Amino acid sequence: MIILFKPNERLDDIQCNGYHIIQNSEVFCFGIDAVLLAHYAKVIKQNQKILDIGTGTGIIPILMHGINKKGRYTAIEVQENMAEMASRSIILNNLQNDIQVKCINIMDYRQHFIQEQFDTITCNPPYMKNNNGLQNNNYSKTISRHEITCTLEGIIDASSHLLKERGKLVMIHRTHRLVDLVELMRKYRIEPKRMRMVYPKISKAPTMMLIEGTKYGNSELKVEAPLIVYNEDNTYTDEINKMYGRYKE
Amino acid sequence: MIILFKPNERLDDIQCNGYHIIQNSEVFCFGIDAVLLAHYAKVIKQNQKILDIGTGTGIIPILMHGINKKGRYTAIEVQENMAEMASRSIILNNLQNDIQVKCINIMDYRQHFIQEQFDTITCNPPYMKNNNGLQNNNYSKTISRHEITCTLEGIIDASSHLLKERGKLVMIHRTHRLVDLVELMRKYRIEPKRMRMVYPKISKAPTMMLIEGTKYGNSELKVEAPLIVYNEDNTYTDEINKMYGRYKE
Repeated sequence: MIILFKPNERLDDIQCNGYHIIQNSEVFCFGIDAVLLAHYAKVIKQNQKILDIGTGTGIIPILMHGINKKGRYTAIEVQENMAEMASRSIILNNLQNDIQVKCINIMDYRQHFIQEQFDTITCNPPYMKNNNGLQNNNYSKTISRHEITCTLEGIIDASSHLLKERGKLVMIHRTHRLVDLVELMRKYRIEPKRMRMVYPKISKAPTMMLIEGTKYGNSELKVEAPLIVYNEDNTYTDEINKMYGRYKE
Repeated sequence: MIILFKPNERLDDIQCNGYHIIQNSEVFCFGIDAVLLAHYAKVIKQNQKILDIGTGTGIIPILMHGINKKGRYTAIEVQENMAEMASRSIILNNLQNDIQVKCINIMDYRQHFIQEQFDTITCNPPYMKNNNGLQNNNYSKTISRHEITCTLEGIIDASSHLLKERGKLVMIHRTHRLVDLVELMRKYRIEPKRMRMVYPKISKAPTMMLIEGTKYGNSELKVEAPLIVYNEDNTYTDEINKMYGRYKE
């Protein structure tokens, strides 16, 4: 098998089931948020149908497959060059049977998907509203970070159409958008059921939160134990080291 | 000065500015939630007008006065016996000039208050929906815990009418009601601006959250550093000991 690399691309061992991923630091490299989300989403059934919205390098379905050894993934990405790079990572890991990459904008979901076909939808969305903050000169990075090609409301609306009854939407987002996020989920009948705050350190404000909503779920949220990234001495906590495959119990 | 005590009443030193409070364990004694809320709400101005909804023993305005040494408090309580007991605690601490107790149901706010008169509203509400969980045989305890004489929506609606522009609503509530709480606050134009999760221990799920909303605030929430109640050895953390006046820096 020959996998072609393009200029500036590199191959990273993701320390999970022997899988590797092609990345291009000129464009976008995955961060800890993708790792946290991949570990937060639950894959229970062998044939669980999972959609990853805005997959970028494909890191989330590849990690989820490595962690759970099950699931049938569709990964969509609006940027053609990213979708193509993700496809090569899928082939590289010999995951073509379980992970399919499509170059699609989620806002056009009606053209590409039938309703209520997924058990789980994952999304690590752009964190910034389009009108907020400095946008990166690199258009590809800007799309990953700002609500340009899609909005939070658009993602949640689409997810509500594409999830089966009792299906789960699992996201990671910045805590400053918490109210927007839970309000929109409820608006589109995806009730927030699990939430976990991600604290950089035990003494610091959380920057991110993980959330899972259930389509047509009843209104009772379980906020879970805190997820703490760094010890006071700036080393990773055991929980994070386990996610990165650097710690065995 | 002679303060009369009734059967089953006791006098507790609240370890704050020398203040004491009358309580009756047959009816209701304040818990850590009241202490956390009193420390979370900010009193900045000498003449800041503060309303405490469902004051019970009067613990929240008495503590807030002791912590901040400022503010003008109105404390309302629907139960006549509780309001009367709170009044005696106010007199006992010689706080009649700064704290006024009224026996009022917040649902009747239009009959008792003019609009937009308070800078801050505090509320430690009943945590349970009326249709949820076992209700206590003791009617007084039931009212404190279940949405019988008022609802969360009624409290937030009333608060929105009674707060000045940019005024703050500060509450503590169970985390399972988070979505209800932030959705209702936004519905009534009190935007959640600060939130703090209260974790029994660092390794446990949070049971309560503190929240502050600003009337007509813009939509950006600051989730703060975790508030942890117990160390792993079951002793109080330094932060809690400070609140209880048991720890001096």
